Amino acid sequence: MDTVIQTVDYIRGMVVIIDQTLLPGEEKYVPLRDPGELADAIRVLKVRGAPALGVAAAHGVLLELENLIIESLDDPPDFIFDHGSPSASFDPSGIDGADVTAKLLETVDMLAATRPTAVNLFWGLERMKKAILGSGSDIKLLAEKVSAEAFAIHDGELETDRRIGENGAVLLRDGMTVLTHCNAGGLATAGYGTALAVIKTAHEQGKRISVFADETRPLLQGARLTAWEMVRAGIDVTVLCDNAAASLFAAGRVDAVVTGADRIVLSGDSANKIGTLGLAVLCSKYGVSMYIAAPWSTFDLTIENGSGIPIEERDPEEVKSFAGIKTTPDEARAYNPAFDVTPAELITAIITETCVINGPDAEKIRTAALEAGVLEPE
Amino acid sequence: MDTVIQTVDYIRGMVVIIDQTLLPGEEKYVPLRDPGELADAIRVLKVRGAPALGVAAAHGVLLELENLIIESLDDPPDFIFDHGSPSASFDPSGIDGADVTAKLLETVDMLAATRPTAVNLFWGLERMKKAILGSGSDIKLLAEKVSAEAFAIHDGELETDRRIGENGAVLLRDGMTVLTHCNAGGLATAGYGTALAVIKTAHEQGKRISVFADETRPLLQGARLTAWEMVRAGIDVTVLCDNAAASLFAAGRVDAVVTGADRIVLSGDSANKIGTLGLAVLCSKYGVSMYIAAPWSTFDLTIENGSGIPIEERDPEEVKSFAGIKTTPDEARAYNPAFDVTPAELITAIITETCVINGPDAEKIRTAALEAGVLEPE
Repeated sequence: MDTVIQTVDYIRGMVVIIDQTLLPGEEKYVPLRDPGELADAIRVLKVRGAPALGVAAAHGVLLELENLIIESLDDPPDFIFDHGSPSASFDPSGIDGADVTAKLLETVDMLAATRPTAVNLFWGLERMKKAILGSGSDIKLLAEKVSAEAFAIHDGELETDRRIGENGAVLLRDGMTVLTHCNAGGLATAGYGTALAVIKTAHEQGKRISVFADETRPLLQGARLTAWEMVRAGIDVTVLCDNAAASLFAAGRVDAVVTGADRIVLSGDSANKIGTLGLAVLCSKYGVSMYIAAPWSTFDLTIENGSGIPIEERDPEEVKSFAGIKTTPDEARAYNPAFDVTPAELITAIITETCVINGPDAEKIRTAALEAGVLEPE
Repeated sequence: MDTVIQTVDYIRGMVVIIDQTLLPGEEKYVPLRDPGELADAIRVLKVRGAPALGVAAAHGVLLELENLIIESLDDPPDFIFDHGSPSASFDPSGIDGADVTAKLLETVDMLAATRPTAVNLFWGLERMKKAILGSGSDIKLLAEKVSAEAFAIHDGELETDRRIGENGAVLLRDGMTVLTHCNAGGLATAGYGTALAVIKTAHEQGKRISVFADETRPLLQGARLTAWEMVRAGIDVTVLCDNAAASLFAAGRVDAVVTGADRIVLSGDSANKIGTLGLAVLCSKYGVSMYIAAPWSTFDLTIENGSGIPIEERDPEEVKSFAGIKTTPDEARAYNPAFDVTPAELITAIITETCVINGPDAEKIRTAALEAGVLEPE
């Protein structure tokens, strides 16, 4: 059984992603040689998921550096950087460090403009920016720091996911049926997952867990990606249309809901894939626990409450047609927000890599963030 | 602007339906010459919608009679029955009335087995059965009574729809935004609609009404059919994925929900297209009125409460693939109920052709049914 997914990686001078738009029909790994290609892949959701966007963006900055160095060399090696093995050596003479720094910062801005809601994207890029600016214009130092930071972001992901899984699995008992929405799995984190890490860990602990996966319109990440991950992990999974969840709650067939998040703000209000709010309302109505599993990189403590979270509206055609087949009259409009915001009062607990925050509010989140070291004491 | 739809009709010896699976791409009218063909069309939802099923089934019984008479004649006319004009005369000598009666009753049973939830199907067939059994074995009388009953059921539909529209339109104010689910329009009633009749009538009264239409997975009746009807009627319509409704409620962008129903029982609990329950829960949470518009033929007063309503589970492939494209791994199961049950306490009012039942419960429904003459005093 395979529970870790090679969602995105940096291999011999290329960013390699699994094209998530082709799953489950085809498992295709696509090499990207240019940060612009990566930005396009992010926009069309070939690579997606809040934590995975942080990793992908970090690799995108490194890719720009790779290309700038290769272009500057008379006799370049096949590649400069490679994940998991020493980088190739190169002669930095003739490379203008200030120029490289400026271009890397442009790449940071270009990647930041791809998608507005998932804060991990900005978190990853902010870390890369610090690495860039902390290197002066010494190209050797820049190369070391930027590659080290990109790989550190990536390598931290799997460890974070494992800890989220362990912290969350405590909440799931043997025999439970868990409903999840969209895909908060290894495909969304470049590792093991957030919500799905909780389920996978409970399963690995020997608990019998059944999963209901909302198909998650319009792009069916639940049917296509979560079901695929659950099947790979050997976990019982049943897909349903998003609108069928209420009938399961009414019949007492859901013991807990676990989802990921794209941005959690100080109050605990959480943006996640469109449809999460509806599930939280059902949890409240039917007395079911609503858990959100997310790393600290998903928190944006600069925003007080959910009304401050920018919500991406995507192309209406994602709703109005499917695989090129028109399903809606041209004259009708479509409303296609990618995310909604679940208010903290509808969230039973937020599961992070350091702790479980029960009944989240600003004070509890501030305290937990201080303990986790992600917030500095004032 | 066109607000009445020729959903199903009986024309010159044939049942003619608009193939709803091809909308909105193609507006195709299909002649059916055999009740078995009609049963297949009902099963695959070429003709659908609770009230329309009552009309279609009645025509299906008449079609069987048509064929039995034609087969028995040495020199048959082109057709026997035609909606809206006198039937052809025929010579009944040599036709075995008892045999015809038996075969018509078999057709009633065959059509009743097509779909289990919408009670209008059984209501229409019950009326046809009474007409058959009330004719003895006099084939001339049988022909008169059966054709008259089929056309009476059909002709009553439009009048019923108009009255539902008028009773419901009172509840909608100028400038309101109404959310609806699935298609409870002329396509669902062989006329003007139930929920959509309410909206069309308010619009015709000069009120500015905007409509949000849930796309209604898995078969997209909202995106395909409701949007098509609203565009034809010149009413502003925006389609959304079912899971996006909650975000509209949270933003205060929905003033009322109006849906149809497939079966309403004595308590007021109402079965309707899967997803209706979720909307009712959202209405309750956000203080929005939840209206159900349905004729008395949708009521099943023999059932006490919603737990007694049989719910159709349809082919999992409706969820797992789209237009022949697989969207879900084979190894994953799918849950695909066609309906859910909204408890009466979540329904603000039920709009019928005779009255509006506010805060529906068994006593109010019994009283209204007695006043409407659909229930006999004990």
